Amino acid sequence: MGHLNTPDTPGTSVRGRPRARRRRMKRHSSSTLHPTFQGRRIPAYNLLSSQDLIRIEDQADWILDTIGVEFRGDRTALDLFQQAGARIDGERVRFEPGQARELCSTAPEEFDLYGRDPMHTVRLGGDNVVLMPGYGSPFVSDLTCGRRYATLEDFRNFVKLAFSTPALHHSGGTVVEPTDVPVNKRHLDMMLAHLTLSTKPFMGAVTAPERARDSIQMAGLVFGHNVMERHAVMQGNINVNSPLVYDHTMSDALRIYAGANQCVCVSPAIFAGAMGPLSLTAVAAQTLAEAMVGIALTQLVRPGCPVVFGSFHSTMNLRSGALTFGSPEANLATMALTQLGRRLGVPVRSGGGQMTASNAPDGQAMQDSTGAMWATLLSGAHQVWHAAGWLEGGLVMSYEKFIMDVDHCGAMLKLLQGFDTDEETYGRDAYLEAGPGENFLSTSHTLRHYKTANFEPQISDAGTYEAWVENGSLTADQRATARWQQLLDDYQQPEMNPDIRAALEDFVAERKAAMPDEWY
Amino acid sequence: MGHLNTPDTPGTSVRGRPRARRRRMKRHSSSTLHPTFQGRRIPAYNLLSSQDLIRIEDQADWILDTIGVEFRGDRTALDLFQQAGARIDGERVRFEPGQARELCSTAPEEFDLYGRDPMHTVRLGGDNVVLMPGYGSPFVSDLTCGRRYATLEDFRNFVKLAFSTPALHHSGGTVVEPTDVPVNKRHLDMMLAHLTLSTKPFMGAVTAPERARDSIQMAGLVFGHNVMERHAVMQGNINVNSPLVYDHTMSDALRIYAGANQCVCVSPAIFAGAMGPLSLTAVAAQTLAEAMVGIALTQLVRPGCPVVFGSFHSTMNLRSGALTFGSPEANLATMALTQLGRRLGVPVRSGGGQMTASNAPDGQAMQDSTGAMWATLLSGAHQVWHAAGWLEGGLVMSYEKFIMDVDHCGAMLKLLQGFDTDEETYGRDAYLEAGPGENFLSTSHTLRHYKTANFEPQISDAGTYEAWVENGSLTADQRATARWQQLLDDYQQPEMNPDIRAALEDFVAERKAAMPDEWY
Repeated sequence: MGHLNTPDTPGTSVRGRPRARRRRMKRHSSSTLHPTFQGRRIPAYNLLSSQDLIRIEDQADWILDTIGVEFRGDRTALDLFQQAGARIDGERVRFEPGQARELCSTAPEEFDLYGRDPMHTVRLGGDNVVLMPGYGSPFVSDLTCGRRYATLEDFRNFVKLAFSTPALHHSGGTVVEPTDVPVNKRHLDMMLAHLTLSTKPFMGAVTAPERARDSIQMAGLVFGHNVMERHAVMQGNINVNSPLVYDHTMSDALRIYAGANQCVCVSPAIFAGAMGPLSLTAVAAQTLAEAMVGIALTQLVRPGCPVVFGSFHSTMNLRSGALTFGSPEANLATMALTQLGRRLGVPVRSGGGQMTASNAPDGQAMQDSTGAMWATLLSGAHQVWHAAGWLEGGLVMSYEKFIMDVDHCGAMLKLLQGFDTDEETYGRDAYLEAGPGENFLSTSHTLRHYKTANFEPQISDAGTYEAWVENGSLTADQRATARWQQLLDDYQQPEMNPDIRAALEDFVAERKAAMPDEWY
Repeated sequence: MGHLNTPDTPGTSVRGRPRARRRRMKRHSSSTLHPTFQGRRIPAYNLLSSQDLIRIEDQADWILDTIGVEFRGDRTALDLFQQAGARIDGERVRFEPGQARELCSTAPEEFDLYGRDPMHTVRLGGDNVVLMPGYGSPFVSDLTCGRRYATLEDFRNFVKLAFSTPALHHSGGTVVEPTDVPVNKRHLDMMLAHLTLSTKPFMGAVTAPERARDSIQMAGLVFGHNVMERHAVMQGNINVNSPLVYDHTMSDALRIYAGANQCVCVSPAIFAGAMGPLSLTAVAAQTLAEAMVGIALTQLVRPGCPVVFGSFHSTMNLRSGALTFGSPEANLATMALTQLGRRLGVPVRSGGGQMTASNAPDGQAMQDSTGAMWATLLSGAHQVWHAAGWLEGGLVMSYEKFIMDVDHCGAMLKLLQGFDTDEETYGRDAYLEAGPGENFLSTSHTLRHYKTANFEPQISDAGTYEAWVENGSLTADQRATARWQQLLDDYQQPEMNPDIRAALEDFVAERKAAMPDEWY
């Protein structure tokens, strides 16, 4: 049957659930956003009917009531939940239907995430869209030097590249793993890179409590801890150890970020069939259940703390066990989860992005990535991780794919602007100048607007076959090599107060000196 | 601001316009469709608000009232319009606001397009989706033999390939130009190929009145003219010579197809800035205006004749003049036009499809194509041309891209099915079997469904990097070579009554013998 697109405002009261009892307010409602930060002007796509959404929300409630979530090794978290009225059984926490959602209700609907340069401050939530590079790859590749372990130099390169492209709004977190730095010291170099090589928002470390604290300390040296008491200047990504487990590393970091009033992104991580049942309804419900519990914990630590409803989900080839990305099932789950997150009333990090399992930046890579990005952005996600560079299911950040991806990010940001239907767009004067059968290229309407009418990609080539052959028959990935090299050559480091820089460098040196290297 | 997705049923009465006065009925309402032909089960995306749609419809009315459309060299068409109350000035036809739309109102909302095998009968309109290969390329390419002029053998190959893939529902028309056959005889060989090598619906010739008549004659030998009096078994594509001109070749063919009660697809062809103003509002309004006039003519020839609202539009690089495909602006226009066509109440051929200007089946090709396909299918198009093979802005049909494209067609058809939220999809028994932190792969819920849960692509590779290198580090296009070769090797010609086959072959031989070769 042909469903209509049911209006489904985030915050529409459904069975008295989401919005009626909300105690939250918008934070920082006076806009501090630079005019170049553009939001979405086209409607969000609503895949599911209200009825379907309610079914999934009920299933999330069933999971939390019947099965529950384990907090392993984190007595503080269990105590907080107990005080809030949840049922505790060992390390298992269970909730009455509606209880977890209610605990989430103090989280802000939208908030600013400050950039070191106010021009790069972004807003999460509402009609805003924040794109950021890939996260967590241990390898990098480029067409000149091939595939190899990522180093700190690669990390710095991707921070520079993200800083250089207007289509990315955020510097990311562990854009690649700097594997040439000891594990227990990487976070210091990564923070230093984000803070000094870029002025866009970024993510801090979460892999140990002291690393989370170091990250917050370093941000404090730049932004001031008094500012951070009122404003988010960084994010911490809390991965749920799905199914239905928070290990204490993650829940410790969650409590540290929330305690410092910095943005927590709670990201369940579900491959359908392995970390949960294989059906999309189940993936959506379990993600919602797991995320609500983490968000609830942030609010128990500090009511009003800024949070993002995250997800990381995909499918597998259930015969071979291979992880797949950009599949139709994963894209449907992405669209459903964006709706569910919007109904929860907090900003949504989509589980999509420009993701692929492909081993090369080829046609498959861009087919997978482009579809996943459409699912992500059409459905109304507020924050998109893995929007650039991701290859091989996230094992690799590809320099060339990064460039092709940001081209597409720019195109999609243009698409999200929709189009105007005002009188000038009719071009009536053009029809009076050029009638039936005539060419409109030289009409004054065309001449008035041709410079700004269309998005102009950097890598896409619409030239003739003959010119393409003459230029070496380079495929898109091959053309991208020169582009990333040029961007790195042209990169100019943003200014920073020398005292602040010195304080950061001293902090890093002192912390490094205080610890022996650890390589695992 | 955050628009909601306004409900915008095709046929919702807006200012008393579209549906109230309709005289049409659904044709062939008893379903003759084979159960394998699946429709869309997810909502269509509505880009534009009703207000925006009305503005564009008003602009279309302004164009038809003030500028008008020329029918060059077709007195019969002009007379038909005059009798219907349009204003004729030389070859120019002008309409009062609303008049052209009113003349379209006898066209059916949905109808069946018969396949020679009833299993391949498709329905155009409603919630149905019909995908078909590219159209009109003078060149083909494959990775083994390179880029070259297309031949009849290539034409036959692509008919076989489209027949062999369940993700395509239609055999197409001039899938490639068989340049080794004289221009005035190509249609005979093309019709023979569609009718004998496939049992899916197809398109006939339109490039001259006698070729259109030959096509209908040949279809009659297979389906019977009495059947064709009541049912569409073929389509004719009528390209408007945009801006605002129908040349008599096209309008003659339109009248011949309509007179035979066969499906006419009216396709304005607009590159924004050249064949019309550069703005999307203008492209949408002009396409609507041009298409309504053609559809009106079909209904004046034969009220109730099945028609499709078509479009072919894209953008240009307005600095270089290069034609671009898959641009954000083209995709927005695609989404807007699908809405406008649905409001007109006839099936919509989207101006999208898997289109690209790329010169190779590379990352750009699939990035462009995938985005254009999302715009096409999410917005609710009923028929999608150029869904497979299109490269170089349509100059080339690529064997490898065809294979990659049909993989994506299959994925998108799966996506259009949405997902179920019934009790079995909750997987509650799986949670009772596998608790927090446990693996769901061996739960009985997974074992019950793993074989059918996920779409399984043919070309996408989710295997490890090491296995990929061991297999030769083949990119997706390189892997596609073996697949199209295998499909051609495995192809089995569908059966046909030998008398009918003989009649077709005799017809072709007689017609060929009756004409000297023409090569231009």
